[in-house]
Amino acid sequence: MLYVSICRKHIKMKTKKHSSYFRKNIDNMTGYIPGEQPQDSLYIKLNTNENPYAPSPKVLAALKDEIDERLRLYPDPVSTGAREKVAEIFKTKPERVMVGNGSDDLLTIITRSFVSKDDKVVYPYPTYLLYKVLSDIQNAKECVIDFREDYSLPEEILVNGAAVTFMCNPNSPSGTMIPVAKISEIAGKIDGIIVVDEAYADFAEDNCLRLVDKHPNLIVLRTLSKSYSLAGMRLGFAVAQKELINGMMKVKDSYNVDRLSMASAVAALDDQETFRQNVSRIIKTREYLTNSLKKLGFFVYPSQANFVMIKCEDSYEAKEIYRELKERKILVRHIDQPRLDDCLRITIGTDKEIETLLEQLAEVQLVLLNQNS
Amino acid sequence: MLYVSICRKHIKMKTKKHSSYFRKNIDNMTGYIPGEQPQDSLYIKLNTNENPYAPSPKVLAALKDEIDERLRLYPDPVSTGAREKVAEIFKTKPERVMVGNGSDDLLTIITRSFVSKDDKVVYPYPTYLLYKVLSDIQNAKECVIDFREDYSLPEEILVNGAAVTFMCNPNSPSGTMIPVAKISEIAGKIDGIIVVDEAYADFAEDNCLRLVDKHPNLIVLRTLSKSYSLAGMRLGFAVAQKELINGMMKVKDSYNVDRLSMASAVAALDDQETFRQNVSRIIKTREYLTNSLKKLGFFVYPSQANFVMIKCEDSYEAKEIYRELKERKILVRHIDQPRLDDCLRITIGTDKEIETLLEQLAEVQLVLLNQNS
Repeated sequence: MLYVSICRKHIKMKTKKHSSYFRKNIDNMTGYIPGEQPQDSLYIKLNTNENPYAPSPKVLAALKDEIDERLRLYPDPVSTGAREKVAEIFKTKPERVMVGNGSDDLLTIITRSFVSKDDKVVYPYPTYLLYKVLSDIQNAKECVIDFREDYSLPEEILVNGAAVTFMCNPNSPSGTMIPVAKISEIAGKIDGIIVVDEAYADFAEDNCLRLVDKHPNLIVLRTLSKSYSLAGMRLGFAVAQKELINGMMKVKDSYNVDRLSMASAVAALDDQETFRQNVSRIIKTREYLTNSLKKLGFFVYPSQANFVMIKCEDSYEAKEIYRELKERKILVRHIDQPRLDDCLRITIGTDKEIETLLEQLAEVQLVLLNQNS
Repeated sequence: MLYVSICRKHIKMKTKKHSSYFRKNIDNMTGYIPGEQPQDSLYIKLNTNENPYAPSPKVLAALKDEIDERLRLYPDPVSTGAREKVAEIFKTKPERVMVGNGSDDLLTIITRSFVSKDDKVVYPYPTYLLYKVLSDIQNAKECVIDFREDYSLPEEILVNGAAVTFMCNPNSPSGTMIPVAKISEIAGKIDGIIVVDEAYADFAEDNCLRLVDKHPNLIVLRTLSKSYSLAGMRLGFAVAQKELINGMMKVKDSYNVDRLSMASAVAALDDQETFRQNVSRIIKTREYLTNSLKKLGFFVYPSQANFVMIKCEDSYEAKEIYRELKERKILVRHIDQPRLDDCLRITIGTDKEIETLLEQLAEVQLVLLNQNS
């Protein structure tokens, strides 16, 4: 802290003309661009990995019960009820749990907790674009390690002295999975924090929660946005050893989770039956979509998530399919970046939505075929 | 960005024993400690500046209308509806407005946007404790400028080259007000960002919103937590020129405001009648409380907020009164820091709550008198 004695000598009039008030690294970055979020319901929305099924009726009821005079009061700053419920469902302790305003909030807290200027941040490519944005905001040195062609991890992912290594597992946008044993091996070898972002783990065959006991440098992230149909409520949580949670608590905003989000989390986690039902429907539809896309001639990456990524002939074809589907009121995700520009990511919708997608996709293929002939 | 070629030479086993994974500045800080938030309703809660009156019935109705299947979908990432409503009510443009998960979220976004390591951050003392916490997280050099005895600002507040100057106006915990003309003068003289945190401005006679036109370096913050009775929903907004808003948009989390918070904001701002009614009741009670406290012999700082700060004989008396009131199920705020440890901050409650407070306070004074004799 600098006190008055140090600062007072500077009293004078404005002298500097600013080109910008922002930090240079902020000026230089573009920011994360989320997938299109049309606020009408004219589209079949298969572009941002939302759950096609409604939240549990018990969640809606719990929310309605919470809407009264108490909204004038601040929420519990440490989200006790939600942490206890997470601990109960995932067989851990509340002091190993932290709740966030979506898992994006937790990713932000993590970079602010562990990453100083010029620290190394490691993540594979391609993956969730936010890791880059958050590293840029911290002015970190990014070590971007290319996934192998089959989305397995090369040994280069082990970077000594890295402050944080991010791992989205299952990965977005590929849907592919790094084996839990491999992640445990990495966590054991590196000397920094490893974050396993398990936003899609509920749709996968395995997950890393059991590794938290073993690795003091591991943080596992979960969200209720996908598997619990609550993207609109913003609720994520981190599971890690107590020392990490305690330190991160100092960095989070005091009241980062509002009363209603907290109530929705408790009710959603409490209704495991609805959760399991919806997840198994989605997995079933995913298998059906994967097979159907293969029949249409696409390469489909093996997915453990609530979406699949397909590879088109080239980036022209991928863009055209995206555009043609959008005209037909179906939104899928096209990411105009290396290794992804010839791919499309398709969220698993309801069976009916997926039928419509497949029909339209077959038509679009014909249109493109005619254009080329 | 560092690519594989630079990073790959580091592949080896863990070598460093960590004393901590955290950044040093995070390890060294204690974090913001919010006021007590008992989650039962056994207390008369006059400690965290919540509104004693319920949110508008129209807000509760709007929230209930929003609770359905749509919660499975992400919210609008740029909060269009809420920004338009803010622009309408405060006679500005949506592109000059940014919405946050409480104004704490906006304060966080501001420090991450403008403050690099070792940059100077200026704020008066005593004030809202979060400015210090956020500066510590950014590893900034803090210039802490003592308010004069009467809570007016000394010239030392003008620090050349400061990245951000924070000003809580009306100030917490004192409730005192810096004249708008003075703030305009400061904004014109300094070459960095000036943030006027107007969390309590709805209870004051004046505010700085009209200065946004004039000063490209000014950000005004508001919240719905206090004057709109929505502390539980987490909704704040910033008003500034478009260039600042655009840059800060890159730093905020993509979906920082959830669907229900957004709906509550639109409905709350729309019901100006309920808002005005509640604010004028609170101001009336504040005047009554101020006079009554003076009659009990306390020095009361002139307040333009929804709380008043009183000065006791010494820190012992202040702590004792806090403790005795808590035993009588009344919570007020005691902050154990220089210049504040002999003070108590009392939130304006309902007339009935304030009557009870005054009765109990008179009793406590007698108890303390007897102890001393």
